[in-house]
Amino acid sequence: MSIINTVSATRADPASLDLMFPQDLISSEVSAQLPSDLQIRPLASTDYKRGHLDVLSGLSIVNDLGEVAWVNQFHAMRATPCAYFSIVIVDKASDKIVGVGTVFIERKFLRGLGSVGHVEDIAVDKNYQGKKLGLRIIQALTHISESNGCYKTILNCNDANIPFYEKCGYVKKENEMAKYAPARVNDTPKL
Amino acid sequence: MSIINTVSATRADPASLDLMFPQDLISSEVSAQLPSDLQIRPLASTDYKRGHLDVLSGLSIVNDLGEVAWVNQFHAMRATPCAYFSIVIVDKASDKIVGVGTVFIERKFLRGLGSVGHVEDIAVDKNYQGKKLGLRIIQALTHISESNGCYKTILNCNDANIPFYEKCGYVKKENEMAKYAPARVNDTPKL
Repeated sequence: MSIINTVSATRADPASLDLMFPQDLISSEVSAQLPSDLQIRPLASTDYKRGHLDVLSGLSIVNDLGEVAWVNQFHAMRATPCAYFSIVIVDKASDKIVGVGTVFIERKFLRGLGSVGHVEDIAVDKNYQGKKLGLRIIQALTHISESNGCYKTILNCNDANIPFYEKCGYVKKENEMAKYAPARVNDTPKL
Repeated sequence: MSIINTVSATRADPASLDLMFPQDLISSEVSAQLPSDLQIRPLASTDYKRGHLDVLSGLSIVNDLGEVAWVNQFHAMRATPCAYFSIVIVDKASDKIVGVGTVFIERKFLRGLGSVGHVEDIAVDKNYQGKKLGLRIIQALTHISESNGCYKTILNCNDANIPFYEKCGYVKKENEMAKYAPARVNDTPKL
């Protein structure tokens, strides 16, 4: 029994993981509001194995290129100074990721050479919905953005999700316009 | 007369400038469609003096912190690998900037570790409007985004500008939501 507890504690302790950014950028207030069987922390370099892409696949096309490519992307993002902040919510018992989100920070020439936080790619495992995990992810990412001095934090969402983001303190501002790149000859088929 | 021509040619030649990224990422097709008295090129480290912020001030609050701070921001953005691509349109005769825009590239875990181009901070000097400079800026930025392999390029705009961006090949997708950071005690007053 004590062995099981030790293993579980090692798995859940962010101090033992290779994180994308320091744990202390995660709001302690948000952490305290999570159910006690869950933990919120920065993405770790070993999170491919904990199902990071499985959770993202609930949101959009993932097209998994394998662990080595995923780890390379993790390192490229971490090597970009003060830009990418990906977080996860982990179920402590199973050591599986059940919620994900990212905020990346854009430098500008406007607003006194200001910065803007862009919230992207929020997803929660469908078996863990109804626990306010989406709200906690948005709160944690907004805290990271504001702690980094961003004068605003923005995100894009569909009409149905506007009320949810309003509860998170966001207001509708403008319209998102998109252009998809033409398919290239050497592209792998779109999934 | 020959001296004046030489000076003018030096001013206009991107090869003599310290650019944010290589000139060859600017679409030659877009360059060819500009009026002959104008030039499109990457932002240069000396563009503070050419009125970069003056043009941006037509779009939003600039809060000019001076040339040294601007140049530091330029270098910080250029030092970020494959992230920031700011462009300008210059009036060759006056060597003044008359149009600006930026695309920055976000790495993702989704879509086969794909990238998305975010178009930001498009502005054209009001004395140069009606020359399709906004269209040329968007076309040039979209070309940069797609040349860098981004699977999509996105931007935010108000309702009135939707038809313009549709002419640029963009379609309305979702809604932009924003949260402005609370004022901090040590902040300079908002302009």
